[in-house]
Amino acid sequence: MDQRLHFITFATPDLHRARSFYKVGLGWEPLMDVPGEIIFFQIAPGQVLGLFDADKFDQDLGGGISTSGISGVTLSHNVGSEEEVSSTIDQLKAAGATVLKPAQAGAFGGIFHGHVKDPNGIVWEIAFNPGWRIDDDGKVVFQ
Amino acid sequence: MDQRLHFITFATPDLHRARSFYKVGLGWEPLMDVPGEIIFFQIAPGQVLGLFDADKFDQDLGGGISTSGISGVTLSHNVGSEEEVSSTIDQLKAAGATVLKPAQAGAFGGIFHGHVKDPNGIVWEIAFNPGWRIDDDGKVVFQ
Repeated sequence: MDQRLHFITFATPDLHRARSFYKVGLGWEPLMDVPGEIIFFQIAPGQVLGLFDADKFDQDLGGGISTSGISGVTLSHNVGSEEEVSSTIDQLKAAGATVLKPAQAGAFGGIFHGHVKDPNGIVWEIAFNPGWRIDDDGKVVFQ
Repeated sequence: MDQRLHFITFATPDLHRARSFYKVGLGWEPLMDVPGEIIFFQIAPGQVLGLFDADKFDQDLGGGISTSGISGVTLSHNVGSEEEVSSTIDQLKAAGATVLKPAQAGAFGGIFHGHVKDPNGIVWEIAFNPGWRIDDDGKVVFQ
């Protein structure tokens, strides 16, 4: 199995709020939007974020699992400065996110960051990490 | 906020089993491995999967959240044929994963797939999706 992730899919109780948050609030462009089922956004080269109706998400897993919300995972978006961490968190809040941790120095990794929760429970970390970069060929480097 | 994901991080109760599963079982190469804290694997251009000690994961979120396992999210790895879905699931099982849904036709999207759970609770879908491709520039296309 190649070291490669193609889709990240979240159980999404309220697709209308998801659409409003990402499309209207953040200005993101859906790759595909199937009302009542799933909204896809491309979020990396060759990779898609799927916001999947929560009942269908459970059904797709085989019916033996009932999802009680999103837990144990965070998504991180890196920006170029501490100021941009704060302004991005402000933008997310204005779009309807709840602030979990205001912008501050992180306990791990020498970063400056904060966390918000989107209307369906996805936790986003917004971070400035001076020890991290992406090379032109897409390789991630920790300095 | 750009439409871009840089890190996906999971609360990981057992880093030893995570290391054994991904590094030994699947042959994946860590980008960085900090014993007792976090293991990083690059899994897309410019993107990293982080397996973060579960206590530190909770602490990093600000202390107000206690994670009770991973829920509401799946990661998908696409392969080139139905046979490869089955053989990849066999490989994951041999590496220590639990099969949740054996390889079969999916209820949504015209795909053939199955699901497994890794030793720390991350659910992976292995899928053959004939209506999906990645163009040379990294753009995902649904046909």
